[in-house]
Amino acid sequence: MRGIKSLIATLKKHNLTLAAAESCSAGYLSYLLTKTPGSSKVFKGGIVAYSLTAKAKFFKIPYSTLKKTQGVSKEVALSLAKGIRKLFNTDLGISIVGFAGPETKKGVKPGTVFIGLSDKNNVMSKKYIIKGSRDRVRKKVSQKAIELIFKKLKRY
Amino acid sequence: MRGIKSLIATLKKHNLTLAAAESCSAGYLSYLLTKTPGSSKVFKGGIVAYSLTAKAKFFKIPYSTLKKTQGVSKEVALSLAKGIRKLFNTDLGISIVGFAGPETKKGVKPGTVFIGLSDKNNVMSKKYIIKGSRDRVRKKVSQKAIELIFKKLKRY
Repeated sequence: MRGIKSLIATLKKHNLTLAAAESCSAGYLSYLLTKTPGSSKVFKGGIVAYSLTAKAKFFKIPYSTLKKTQGVSKEVALSLAKGIRKLFNTDLGISIVGFAGPETKKGVKPGTVFIGLSDKNNVMSKKYIIKGSRDRVRKKVSQKAIELIFKKLKRY
Repeated sequence: MRGIKSLIATLKKHNLTLAAAESCSAGYLSYLLTKTPGSSKVFKGGIVAYSLTAKAKFFKIPYSTLKKTQGVSKEVALSLAKGIRKLFNTDLGISIVGFAGPETKKGVKPGTVFIGLSDKNNVMSKKYIIKGSRDRVRKKVSQKAIELIFKKLKRY
């Protein structure tokens, strides 16, 4: 993984700001994004929407929709990525939802995660299945999110 | 530090829920609180209010008040602890604000942090000065917050 320092510098160069909506990673991505002094110039904050109620409240997703997949779906990742941009008034919004494990939920394997990424023109999501412990899944998906932002920045 | 597993179990035993408002720790406390499977029963989520704008928006603190101390004061810690309980409709609210460093801001040394803790009857805050690197300050203050919750739970 390329470093946070490089990511923050690249965002700064393009004059872009960022916010994060996290479910299973629960703040780890935001923690990574702020490892570098001066990150506050580009990273404005985020919401740890750990419960379904929090996802429903802050991102206006019907509770019934969330219940179907326990909040782990492409649609929820997209809604969180779009929503967090608006809530924090940033150029980019990144989201992480998933099952960190160890248990299988709704027939879905632990390690199943979706990352969403939005800017003012687009919103996309990507699904990953990450093997390993609960902690490995949460750390790895946060690194994947950072890689996805790097990829996006190539088009700027 | 006593373990997260024990904290989550104690909260569960007392049927208490928790939410976190983080500034300088930027999600690290929320990440710690969710290390244990089943933590979603008690930890509902949080806000990473990294920017002053986010603190003003979500916690209704006048921007002029925040500017005076760059958001690092007892008052801001109290407002965040009170506010996060209401936003997530939880029994307890914990907050962390501070300067993680390395630079001195507004004449205040890096490592100066305030932790706030609220329940439906009270809100309190504690100031700490933590030595060491930016990363050490952020990790240590998150551990201090967990100790403060443990202390509070003795009275339940």
